[in-house]
Amino acid sequence: MVRRAKTGDPGLRGVPLSPGVARAPSRLRAVPLDSRAMVGPALQFELHRTDPRTRARLGRVSTRHGSFDTPAFMPVGTQGTVKGILPDHLAATGSQIILGNTYHLMLRPGSKVVAELGDLHRFMAWPGPILTDSGGFQVFSLADINQIDDHGVTFRSHIDGSIVQLTPERSMQVQNDLGADIIMAFDECPDPHKPIEYQQLAVDRTVRWAEQCVAAHARKDDQSLFGIVQGGTNESLRLRCAEKLIAMELPGYAIGGLAVGEGFDAMKRVLSYTTPALPEHKPRYLMGVGFPRDIVAAVREGMDMFDCVMPTRNGRNAYAFTMDGPIRLRNSRFANDAGPVESGCDCYACRHFTRGAVRHFFLAGEMLGPILLSLHNIRFYQRLMADVRRAIGEGRFDEFAANDPRAALGGADPDASEPEGKEEAS
Amino acid sequence: MVRRAKTGDPGLRGVPLSPGVARAPSRLRAVPLDSRAMVGPALQFELHRTDPRTRARLGRVSTRHGSFDTPAFMPVGTQGTVKGILPDHLAATGSQIILGNTYHLMLRPGSKVVAELGDLHRFMAWPGPILTDSGGFQVFSLADINQIDDHGVTFRSHIDGSIVQLTPERSMQVQNDLGADIIMAFDECPDPHKPIEYQQLAVDRTVRWAEQCVAAHARKDDQSLFGIVQGGTNESLRLRCAEKLIAMELPGYAIGGLAVGEGFDAMKRVLSYTTPALPEHKPRYLMGVGFPRDIVAAVREGMDMFDCVMPTRNGRNAYAFTMDGPIRLRNSRFANDAGPVESGCDCYACRHFTRGAVRHFFLAGEMLGPILLSLHNIRFYQRLMADVRRAIGEGRFDEFAANDPRAALGGADPDASEPEGKEEAS
Repeated sequence: MVRRAKTGDPGLRGVPLSPGVARAPSRLRAVPLDSRAMVGPALQFELHRTDPRTRARLGRVSTRHGSFDTPAFMPVGTQGTVKGILPDHLAATGSQIILGNTYHLMLRPGSKVVAELGDLHRFMAWPGPILTDSGGFQVFSLADINQIDDHGVTFRSHIDGSIVQLTPERSMQVQNDLGADIIMAFDECPDPHKPIEYQQLAVDRTVRWAEQCVAAHARKDDQSLFGIVQGGTNESLRLRCAEKLIAMELPGYAIGGLAVGEGFDAMKRVLSYTTPALPEHKPRYLMGVGFPRDIVAAVREGMDMFDCVMPTRNGRNAYAFTMDGPIRLRNSRFANDAGPVESGCDCYACRHFTRGAVRHFFLAGEMLGPILLSLHNIRFYQRLMADVRRAIGEGRFDEFAANDPRAALGGADPDASEPEGKEEAS
Repeated sequence: MVRRAKTGDPGLRGVPLSPGVARAPSRLRAVPLDSRAMVGPALQFELHRTDPRTRARLGRVSTRHGSFDTPAFMPVGTQGTVKGILPDHLAATGSQIILGNTYHLMLRPGSKVVAELGDLHRFMAWPGPILTDSGGFQVFSLADINQIDDHGVTFRSHIDGSIVQLTPERSMQVQNDLGADIIMAFDECPDPHKPIEYQQLAVDRTVRWAEQCVAAHARKDDQSLFGIVQGGTNESLRLRCAEKLIAMELPGYAIGGLAVGEGFDAMKRVLSYTTPALPEHKPRYLMGVGFPRDIVAAVREGMDMFDCVMPTRNGRNAYAFTMDGPIRLRNSRFANDAGPVESGCDCYACRHFTRGAVRHFFLAGEMLGPILLSLHNIRFYQRLMADVRRAIGEGRFDEFAANDPRAALGGADPDASEPEGKEEAS
C-alpha cells in the first residue's frame, strides 16, 4: 500500500531557503510522527540567473516536500540513512535534498515495507526532498548478473542469494512505493569500453525503457520522473538519446554513464555537447559526480544537480576534504593537533572537536570518527555549493572557477577499492 | 601539560537546571573551541529534600563545569565518547554529567595527549561535569594481570601488549591530566567470592591507597577526589572501610564492589548498613549500577549518583528499554511496525523513527541502529531519574518505588557476555 499526501508538513512548508543559507536544523526537530507530504505541483524549476561568461545557472527546484537551491549536492543515503548521520545534523550541513538507492531498498527491507511504514521520507525521518535512482546503475555495477535482455536485468541478490528481476515496470513500482519526489527512469549503463555497437544497443534500450517507465509510473501527481541520457563518449549517440527523451516531455533530465572511468577531460567533452541539447527550463542532473573539480566543471557546462558517495565513504575512512587539499586523520602527525579538522570550517566536527580527538576515535574504532568526518565532508561539499551559487548570483562564476582552490581538487578516489564502497556506490 | 581554567564557559554558566528538566541541546552548540572550565569551588552539594518515609534524597552537585541534579545517572563515555552519540544529542537526553574511563584513556590516546589537547572536556566536546574512575575496576576485571601487591597492579595493555603499572600515584597523575571534575581514588575491587581474609586485605589496601591518592592529588582546587568504600558483603568490613575514609574528609564517597555478581538482595543489604554510615552532606555514588530496579532501590537507601553501560551497550545490541519491559528490535515482529520504539517517549529516536526502520538499520548493519537505541535507552534512564527526583521533591518517593513499573525492571543483563562489553565495562 502506498500512502498518499493528505496534510501539510509543518517542518518544511513555507521555509524560505536562500542560496547559500543552510536550513536550520531545528526545523526538522519539530516534525511530528504523522507528518506527510505537502500539497502543490510535483515539481517546479525556477531559473534565477545564468552566468554571463559560462553556462552556469542558478535556480531553485520545488517539490511537494520543499525546495532546494541549484546547483545542488545530494548526500547519498543508500539504505535509508546517510551512514551514521542523524537527520538534524544532516540538515545542519546545508543539505536540502538527499538520494536513496532503489537497488538496496528493494532488496532490504523491500519497498512494500517502506510504503507500509509511511514512505521513504518517513522511514529516513527526512521531511525534505528525496531523489531515488532507478536501481540500474547498481545492478550493472554491483550485482551478480545472470541475464540482460530487452525486458530488463536478472541478478542474484547480495543479501540472500535469491534471483531478482529488475525491469522498467518493477523499478517504477518500487520507486512509487518509496515515494521520493524525484524518481529516475530505468536505464542501461554499459561499460564505457564496450564497442560502439553495444553503446548503440544500450541507448536504444534506455530510450525504450524510458517509454515503458512513463507508461508504468503510477504517481505522476506526486513524483517527477527524470529521463537519463546515455551514449558513452559518442556525441551522436548522446544527442540522439537526448532528443528521444526530450520528446517524452519529462520534468527533468539526467546525464548518466559518466564518472565511470572515462576521465575528467572526456567527461567535460561529453557535457559540452550534451548539456546544450537539454531543455533550458528543466533541471539537469549529473549522476554520481564527483570530486569538487568535477562539480565545478559540470556547473560551468550548465548542470544543476549532483550526487556522490565520496564525502561520506571517504569520511568513514578517515579522509577529510579541506581547502588545502585532503588529509588522512589516521596520520600520526595529528596525534597532538589541537586545531579543528579544517580551519575556518563551521561544521559540527570542526566547531567542537580537535584533530587529535578525531584521530583517536579512528584508532580506537569509535563510531564518532566516521560520524564526524562524514559530517565535515558533507559540509565541505555544501559550502562549495553555496559558494558556487553565490558566485553565479553575483555574476562572477568564471572568476570563481578560475581561482578557487576547490575547482582544482580532483584526482583518483583513494578509497574506491575499499569494500564499503560497494554498499554505497550510487 | 595540564591546562587550567582561565575563562568561563558560555555553554553552561548560569544555566538553571531544575530537577526533571533536560538541558537544552542548543546550549552546547554555542561552546566555542577555546572554552575552558568555570571558576568557582571544586564541588558543592546542596541537599534539597529528604523523603519522609525512605532515605531517598534530592540534591544538586555543582562543579567548575556546571551542576547536576541528584539522584543522577551518568552515561559512560569509555574512550572519550559515549559510543556513537554526539554531545548535543547526549545533552538532549537530559544527561548532565558523564563518566570517562581512566584505564582506557591512559592506554589510548594517553592522558598526556588528552592534556595537550586541552583536557577531557575539550577532548569529548562535553563542557559539563565529568567524572573519571580510577582505573582500578577495569584493571581487576579486564586486564591480563601480572601482579598485585601493596604498590599497585602490573598488567599487560590490551592495545599493544606492553607492561603497564597502575598505582595510586599514577592513577592520580592520569586523572589530573584528564581534568575531570570528580576523580576517584584507586581501590582494589576483589572477587566477591574470595575468602574474608582476602576481603580484609583488600580493604586495608584500599584505605592505604586512598591516603596515597590524597597525598598525590595535585589539582585539589579543580578536581574533587571521592573515596571508595569496599568490603564485599561483610558489614564490619564495610563500616570499617567507611570510617577510615570518612576520617580523610573527602568531598564525596562511593560504594564500590557491588553489581559484581552478589545479587540484588545482597546489594540492598550492603547499602542498608553502609549508606547510613556515610556523611549526610556529601554526595554518594554507587558505582556501576545498574538496572532501573537497582537504581530505585539504591535511591531508597540514600544514594545520589549512578553509572552503567547498560543503556548504551544494550542499545548497540538492538535491546531497547521500555515502560512495558525490554524489547529486541531485531525481532521480525517489528518489521512493519510503524510505531515508535517506545510509545510516549520524547527521545530523538522515538520522535522521528519507526520500529520498522530501526529494525532495518540493525539488519543492514547501519550505524543508525546502535545510535538511535543508545539515545533512546539513555533517555529512558534520564526520564527515570527525572521522575525519581520529582517523586522525592513531592514527598511521594515511597509510593513511586512501590508502583512504578520501572522499579521492578531488573534481571540478568542479556548482553553481559558479549565482547563489546569488555571495551566499555566500568
